[in-house]
Amino acid sequence: MRPKIFLFGDSITQDSFAEGGWGASLANHFSRTVDVVLRGYSGYNTRWVLKVLEKVFAATQHGDGGINGAPVAITIFFGANDACLPDRYGAFQHVPLLEYKQNLHSIVSFFVQWPTTHILLITTPPIDEEARLRYPYAYNPQGLPERTNEAAGEYATACIAVAEECGVPVIDLWTKMQQCPDWRKEYLCDGLHLTQSGNRVVFEEVILKLREKGLSLEAMPVDLPLLADIDPNDPLKSFQ
Amino acid sequence: MRPKIFLFGDSITQDSFAEGGWGASLANHFSRTVDVVLRGYSGYNTRWVLKVLEKVFAATQHGDGGINGAPVAITIFFGANDACLPDRYGAFQHVPLLEYKQNLHSIVSFFVQWPTTHILLITTPPIDEEARLRYPYAYNPQGLPERTNEAAGEYATACIAVAEECGVPVIDLWTKMQQCPDWRKEYLCDGLHLTQSGNRVVFEEVILKLREKGLSLEAMPVDLPLLADIDPNDPLKSFQ
Repeated sequence: MRPKIFLFGDSITQDSFAEGGWGASLANHFSRTVDVVLRGYSGYNTRWVLKVLEKVFAATQHGDGGINGAPVAITIFFGANDACLPDRYGAFQHVPLLEYKQNLHSIVSFFVQWPTTHILLITTPPIDEEARLRYPYAYNPQGLPERTNEAAGEYATACIAVAEECGVPVIDLWTKMQQCPDWRKEYLCDGLHLTQSGNRVVFEEVILKLREKGLSLEAMPVDLPLLADIDPNDPLKSFQ
Repeated sequence: MRPKIFLFGDSITQDSFAEGGWGASLANHFSRTVDVVLRGYSGYNTRWVLKVLEKVFAATQHGDGGINGAPVAITIFFGANDACLPDRYGAFQHVPLLEYKQNLHSIVSFFVQWPTTHILLITTPPIDEEARLRYPYAYNPQGLPERTNEAAGEYATACIAVAEECGVPVIDLWTKMQQCPDWRKEYLCDGLHLTQSGNRVVFEEVILKLREKGLSLEAMPVDLPLLADIDPNDPLKSFQ
């Protein structure tokens, strides 16, 4: 049975199999070693996630026969919606910072049922507020962005704190992306979601963190003989 | 438990999660409805596949609890390697036409264990022989292509015959692609494997065939409420 990596998150996860997406890149990278399973829920915050956690992973808990169905790793990538400001048009998605921290703790704790699973937190990316004004997803009579980069940074910091408290690795996407001077255009397509370059950053950071946990192409068994390992003079020998 | 679609084939399947790949496009299309599971084995022909069929699908048969683990659909996309010529450098992958037909029959028959699964055959794409000379994958002192378009066409015809005999749908990729005058450059990157345009053709054809079997986005249940269906004034109502 092939190992699985679950990608659990909001729209930045749900969209990760679009062209150049970080999820598709992971599936391609691990094409003969790991199944990458998409569990992205566009618009979801951690408050909503807590209501559906059991349901999302019920089949994995039961259908696959318990621990055998546990993934080798799971990325948990929530916060961009929690960080919507409480007095703007995205308020219905807003979750206060302290509750976000508690919720993220609860989400990580849920996966304690899989003691062998590597949990990887990912912070919200930075926000380009001007671009958010150009790409509102609802009527915006205030003319103000529904998210700010400062608020996103606070949720990123909270996510990092939860990772430290839980002893799990974290990708600080908020900081990492802003190390590129042209991050707004290079990594974000609408001030929030990722360009292909932005997806590339997530892919490379995830690969790096997985490798640190021993989950690399070289370390994982390949599903069936590779063509390069099949003897052209006696191919069937590989299949005995 | 989310329905699954298995992609079972050779390198054209294994590579289908690369940028613009047809597998990734399927996973993106069905991001909230179906898990797309990659089972691509580069270089494999139907003779080798018969040796590993049980192993490839053992977890699906047993680990997932029998019929519950059966996919809603499976694409079977073999023939490009069988069609390697028997007197060229790819001879070790060659499978005679009659055996190819019999093998493909056996592969389709294997999935009778899943009576609700829609089986979809896909023929080998056409071959650009000049490009194959520019992109050999082994030492080629003969200076002749290891595949020809004519031979590929015979295997495509055999695949179509098997589909008819088994009463399952088939995508005639060999014919479909050659309807484009510039098919060699438009759809093939090395005379055999697919460009992003070529991947697009496969994606669209698969979507079309699945739709004919009732497997469309509109017809399939969405995993958890969509953001557009959540009441901004009372979001938690959707999660009761």
